[in-house]
Amino acid sequence: MEKKRVGVLLSGCGVFDGSEIHEAVLTLLYLNREGVETICMAPDIPQAHVINHLTQEEMSESRNVLVESARIARGEIRDLKDVTAAELDALIVPGGFGAAKNLSDFAFKGPGGDVYPDVKRLIDDMLASNKPIGALCIAPATVGMALKDKSPELTIGNDENTIGALQALGVKHTVCAVDEIAIDVKNKIVSTPAYMLGPDIKHVANGIEKLVKQVLSMI
Amino acid sequence: MEKKRVGVLLSGCGVFDGSEIHEAVLTLLYLNREGVETICMAPDIPQAHVINHLTQEEMSESRNVLVESARIARGEIRDLKDVTAAELDALIVPGGFGAAKNLSDFAFKGPGGDVYPDVKRLIDDMLASNKPIGALCIAPATVGMALKDKSPELTIGNDENTIGALQALGVKHTVCAVDEIAIDVKNKIVSTPAYMLGPDIKHVANGIEKLVKQVLSMI
Repeated sequence: MEKKRVGVLLSGCGVFDGSEIHEAVLTLLYLNREGVETICMAPDIPQAHVINHLTQEEMSESRNVLVESARIARGEIRDLKDVTAAELDALIVPGGFGAAKNLSDFAFKGPGGDVYPDVKRLIDDMLASNKPIGALCIAPATVGMALKDKSPELTIGNDENTIGALQALGVKHTVCAVDEIAIDVKNKIVSTPAYMLGPDIKHVANGIEKLVKQVLSMI
Repeated sequence: MEKKRVGVLLSGCGVFDGSEIHEAVLTLLYLNREGVETICMAPDIPQAHVINHLTQEEMSESRNVLVESARIARGEIRDLKDVTAAELDALIVPGGFGAAKNLSDFAFKGPGGDVYPDVKRLIDDMLASNKPIGALCIAPATVGMALKDKSPELTIGNDENTIGALQALGVKHTVCAVDEIAIDVKNKIVSTPAYMLGPDIKHVANGIEKLVKQVLSMI
């Protein structure tokens, strides 16, 4: 039997301006344990900004989302624009602010913002092909923006402001603990709060392991 | 009972010019699962160079080891110069080329190179205090350089050139599989090949889990 192929959509490398590194690595670990082929991808665009992760201040430099995401993927990564839903059996989007700064502008504009076109194209195509999507941490905000016409059921943990912004989009929000998942059976979307709640990596890992297994079970 | 405190010495953020991200994250995961307190640290120095992880070419920019390591540590990191062996019960050094480019210059000069002074100071003090050290991937090269007078027993997997360079330092090398560990009982040093062998993250994870448990058992 051919291996299942799961896309992992990255958004840079670091919790404050890119993909949350722990979440991305744990996603890769649990996918590898389940014997699936992983296809990492990211958009070839400048990051919204670069944050010094020691001071949390903005740095006066520019970095590229695909190039920095390649650090997490150990160089094995593709330009998002070349990846189609037809190649994938499922898609998982780790969190980190990059998921709401580089894949959409939710972090800057809230529910009135836009999803980056190739991200919307891939998410739309996955849904239209009845293929499951997993979203971690703040990534459900971008998935929710992309799919606002589908009234998706998602979790981003328990942050009231973010929940309110998602509800304004028509998202049905479920409060979850860090090691739990929310399942939208109709749209085949699985989400987990990860570091929206944390704080322990072991609990984040448990939620991600559940998410990966649930996503794979819906293929 | 007070929590055990384990230092994790980082060297940047990315396999080709910093800490290997998967190895660092898995080290943090297994330490957290064992209920220990983790203290991430890195030297406040410029990286030896910056590598584009998509093309593997050198980039014409400068990054700081402590600032980039903070990405892996989610901002919770200390300047190596302020950390003493007296604060720690054990020390673990993840791999990635940064461990042999920024913590020492082994990657550029081989066994004739030098260990960065604060790295040598901390490793020497751990050994003098009879506290265990764990080293992953290529990090045993830097640990071996620091402790060459102690004839340490280490593994970096099975790469003959690297093994030859370590033997030139007086290191006793043990060939190990990716999910195995080498134990130097006398010097309390534990090592595992990690991504010196890879290629699967699940096997790298198994080796790191064993290393973490062995290191903690030697406290």
